[in-house]
Amino acid sequence: MTSDEDGLHGVIPYLVSPVDASGEIDRPVLAALVEHLIAAGVHGLTPLGSTGEFAYLDERRRADVVETVVAAARGRVPVIAGVAATTTAAAAAQAARYREMGVAGVMATLEAYFPIPEDGIVDYFSAVAEAAGLPVVLYTNPNFQRVDLTLAVIDRLSHVPNIRYLKDASTNTGRLLTIMERTEGRLGIFAASSHITAAVMLIGGRGWMAGPSCIVPRQSVELYDLCRAGRWDEAMSLQRRLWAVNEVFARYNLAGAVKAGLQLQGFAVGDPLPPQPALDAAGIAAVRRALEGCGALPG
Amino acid sequence: MTSDEDGLHGVIPYLVSPVDASGEIDRPVLAALVEHLIAAGVHGLTPLGSTGEFAYLDERRRADVVETVVAAARGRVPVIAGVAATTTAAAAAQAARYREMGVAGVMATLEAYFPIPEDGIVDYFSAVAEAAGLPVVLYTNPNFQRVDLTLAVIDRLSHVPNIRYLKDASTNTGRLLTIMERTEGRLGIFAASSHITAAVMLIGGRGWMAGPSCIVPRQSVELYDLCRAGRWDEAMSLQRRLWAVNEVFARYNLAGAVKAGLQLQGFAVGDPLPPQPALDAAGIAAVRRALEGCGALPG
Amino acid sequence: MTSDEDGLHGVIPYLVSPVDASGEIDRPVLAALVEHLIAAGVHGLTPLGSTGEFAYLDERRRADVVETVVAAARGRVPVIAGVAATTTAAAAAQAARYREMGVAGVMATLEAYFPIPEDGIVDYFSAVAEAAGLPVVLYTNPNFQRVDLTLAVIDRLSHVPNIRYLKDASTNTGRLLTIMERTEGRLGIFAASSHITAAVMLIGGRGWMAGPSCIVPRQSVELYDLCRAGRWDEAMSLQRRLWAVNEVFARYNLAGAVKAGLQLQGFAVGDPLPPQPALDAAGIAAVRRALEGCGALPG
Amino acid sequence: MTSDEDGLHGVIPYLVSPVDASGEIDRPVLAALVEHLIAAGVHGLTPLGSTGEFAYLDERRRADVVETVVAAARGRVPVIAGVAATTTAAAAAQAARYREMGVAGVMATLEAYFPIPEDGIVDYFSAVAEAAGLPVVLYTNPNFQRVDLTLAVIDRLSHVPNIRYLKDASTNTGRLLTIMERTEGRLGIFAASSHITAAVMLIGGRGWMAGPSCIVPRQSVELYDLCRAGRWDEAMSLQRRLWAVNEVFARYNLAGAVKAGLQLQGFAVGDPLPPQPALDAAGIAAVRRALEGCGALPG
Repeated sequence: MTSDEDGLHGVIPYLVSPVDASGEIDRPVLAALVEHLIAAGVHGLTPLGSTGEFAYLDERRRADVVETVVAAARGRVPVIAGVAATTTAAAAAQAARYREMGVAGVMATLEAYFPIPEDGIVDYFSAVAEAAGLPVVLYTNPNFQRVDLTLAVIDRLSHVPNIRYLKDASTNTGRLLTIMERTEGRLGIFAASSHITAAVMLIGGRGWMAGPSCIVPRQSVELYDLCRAGRWDEAMSLQRRLWAVNEVFARYNLAGAVKAGLQLQGFAVGDPLPPQPALDAAGIAAVRRALEGCGALPG
Repeated sequence: MTSDEDGLHGVIPYLVSPVDASGEIDRPVLAALVEHLIAAGVHGLTPLGSTGEFAYLDERRRADVVETVVAAARGRVPVIAGVAATTTAAAAAQAARYREMGVAGVMATLEAYFPIPEDGIVDYFSAVAEAAGLPVVLYTNPNFQRVDLTLAVIDRLSHVPNIRYLKDASTNTGRLLTIMERTEGRLGIFAASSHITAAVMLIGGRGWMAGPSCIVPRQSVELYDLCRAGRWDEAMSLQRRLWAVNEVFARYNLAGAVKAGLQLQGFAVGDPLPPQPALDAAGIAAVRRALEGCGALPG
Repeated sequence: MTSDEDGLHGVIPYLVSPVDASGEIDRPVLAALVEHLIAAGVHGLTPLGSTGEFAYLDERRRADVVETVVAAARGRVPVIAGVAATTTAAAAAQAARYREMGVAGVMATLEAYFPIPEDGIVDYFSAVAEAAGLPVVLYTNPNFQRVDLTLAVIDRLSHVPNIRYLKDASTNTGRLLTIMERTEGRLGIFAASSHITAAVMLIGGRGWMAGPSCIVPRQSVELYDLCRAGRWDEAMSLQRRLWAVNEVFARYNLAGAVKAGLQLQGFAVGDPLPPQPALDAAGIAAVRRALEGCGALPG
Repeated sequence: MTSDEDGLHGVIPYLVSPVDASGEIDRPVLAALVEHLIAAGVHGLTPLGSTGEFAYLDERRRADVVETVVAAARGRVPVIAGVAATTTAAAAAQAARYREMGVAGVMATLEAYFPIPEDGIVDYFSAVAEAAGLPVVLYTNPNFQRVDLTLAVIDRLSHVPNIRYLKDASTNTGRLLTIMERTEGRLGIFAASSHITAAVMLIGGRGWMAGPSCIVPRQSVELYDLCRAGRWDEAMSLQRRLWAVNEVFARYNLAGAVKAGLQLQGFAVGDPLPPQPALDAAGIAAVRRALEGCGALPG
């Protein structure tokens, strides 16, 4: 699955969700960001990931985000919308709604308050897959989510025909190789910003879905191409500079850092929704340095 | 603050949220439960706590729950509605809405996806307090919530005039004494089902807010009265039987266990919302035994 | 088991281990501390608990500590020596050696590097019990130890005839009531400094084994007596002042704080072994204030 | 530092510690294992790592292990002995003793019971480095050790001249790149069995120190050589088969699994010390399959 270009692959940025002063999604700014990223060569777009503050937006605003991105993308790259809920019914409804809007796939997360046993987790994602009727990316993020997917659950879900990918935001790179071996090609694996993307490409990853790619899109695509060409020394040289960007994001609020970087690049995306903090001056300076270090801002 | 009967005190059950087959709040069943609990002598009612599955209900259904409970209570006991959101704006809007509905106070929780720094936490709860304009109970539950309130944050918030209580669902009883000493009477302390309520009463607690009280209301009120009268030997004898109820709830999904118990007692409250599991036969048998053991079901 | 005075009960301080400049146990200082504590009315003595820095002493120095305490106690109160090792063989050897030295019982801990399955844990403590041939106290401290004892393991071990007590240093007071109910009187329960001791007495505890009792022995005995007499209001009044002492110890290195307190009281017990830090000036001032607050130092 | 062959590099197995029926180190078996590994081409040997059960051996037996390994190696490869203690004095004494025995370096771990502040950690490792007077490898293993080294501590320690390497047994591969960038070449980085070693080589690692290399030494050396030659496709092909070995070890007791594998290969190394469990039949079968899968046992 990793050696061909069928299906999802490459650099698929997590989009931020710009919100204007009245609390509504700022559609023109979001559309401009989409245009900019497609021009930079990204291979897809993911609205409503962690960086997109899905957890801070109600159903209507989430739909506004997806609608805006699909319209702006005009079919040039696949749009993979984030689906996340605590109930199976709400998640399935989101998936169905986004399909009608024209997304190419959904990335599914289980939000949980109480612990959920394995069968419930499988039921949830299976219901999302059925409602979506499109390729599904499982999204697992043990840092921010209360439910992590065990290997046994991932294996079971990999047999659902349209559950075809997994994006892992743990820091455990070895686990990705374990999942690849266990699911025997049924799931394509995407890295997150918590992994060294070149390393994930080395072990057979299909690309990455990550917030920082919003602000270093050209460099990310270049890294992907170097990895695909097996030019690993050049890839690692670029990877080191990009890693400084990832480190900044790990240190600050993820949405806040990406939004700050985009503001430095001229996109009026605003700050994350309170009580999330906006980056302070030191944080903005750190983002600026990281971007300058890899040519994403003039030095 | 603990020796008088001003303000909130006593047994304040967390209500379940019955949902009918169409996904709507089952208002008649909820109203019947309210009537039953008031008849049993409880001192207040808390819709939209953890047991009330607030995390599984959208804004409209949450409002339906609060409206139903306020109407059914008819002012006989105070209704303290749960407020919980990821954004400050949504939480303040909930508080304002519930105030207009006639609640006597709100119990506030911060839902978080990304970590929130101390100032943001203080801003969030302060905004809820301002919007509520009513007594506020801080609710901290490290088992299910991503944000726990530090002593320093609790101390700062205790100086907001209408933040007057704290309900703690950790298992650390000593921490409650620490909070009492640190806030010097500015916060009245309520236990949760994770604490031995007699022990919390001994150290100066005002009562408890807990899901299990829904199914052992008379016994809970009796325990409260024994504690207030200083009849500790009798209190502990009753406490031991009630503790078996709490233990059952800690072992199973909290909402599922309380809903199962209420069904055994004749209330058609249904099961928790999927993917939460309904109790299996063994779980129902364990609930039955615990209820029989303290006289809440005929043995 | 809690209503009689047979067996271990009451205030049983964890002794510090004074070490002189040459790295040897300072026997005269330790003997003087024993004399002081017995004069204050304590009901037993526990060398080689956490506060006794057992984890920082080799086998020979541990034996020196036990030998010194047994000799100084002269049978006036029971001496319960801490046994702790990673291997079953080493733990059993310690227990046998301390029995020959004349201890009245042992308090057993499992030190672990790799996780140990349930059967291995049961084997370890059973071997210690057999080698000791004396009453055994199980010691569980999830804060500092890698192995915590599950309820199932505790239940199994409670059927070993001479495993008769459990001392719990978690902060979860409810768990103690659960253990009492589950083991149906086979285990007497002792609190640690992480619990409110009056609350543990209320629910049926036999007393407490704790480092802070070294520096507030008279006050601790007074609290125990008030609890036994059912004078709960007076007990809580004293408990509040003593809780300030416990809070200081939770904030600093436990051995360092107790050693600092003893130095303020005139015992040249020195500092904890490096790289453990000695208390800084602020820490010493906090210890002094806490001791003054409960009459353990002239104010 | 990673592009030359000066200093430590390559495959440096963690040796098991065979113990005979009388509880003594089985020197002939250990010497035979050393001979076997050197013949297989390993680049160094590490007695007293986690796999070597250092935490289960007293000081005398630890010294027996080191003495045996140094004697058997006869200077053909560097011997890096594990140093681990709770006190600075004991760790420094170990380091000095092993230097006198002729080791080429030490790998240092801080065992902790109480938390240790940053300055204490720096003092501990600095004292070990001074006592050793030889290259020091910092060893950090958040799974089994109570103290993890922060980036700030690692940076401070990297300025001690003979602290030259770090071996990380977390699962966070990105952290290794962060440490490399932060310490700017002052520390050479070794992987553990929790990392994909090919990935660590890609990002600039010097090799790996790991228990599984004991039972797949030739394959490990082949993997190292492929990585050094930049033959990444072949490296990943071999890596996949070796990863199955690592997965087995993560699932079972590490020492037990390596000892079981060595027994299958004809080395009478016995089982891990109780209460650690020996592998059961299913575990032994899993080890056998993994070894057969990479040619380390005849299939």
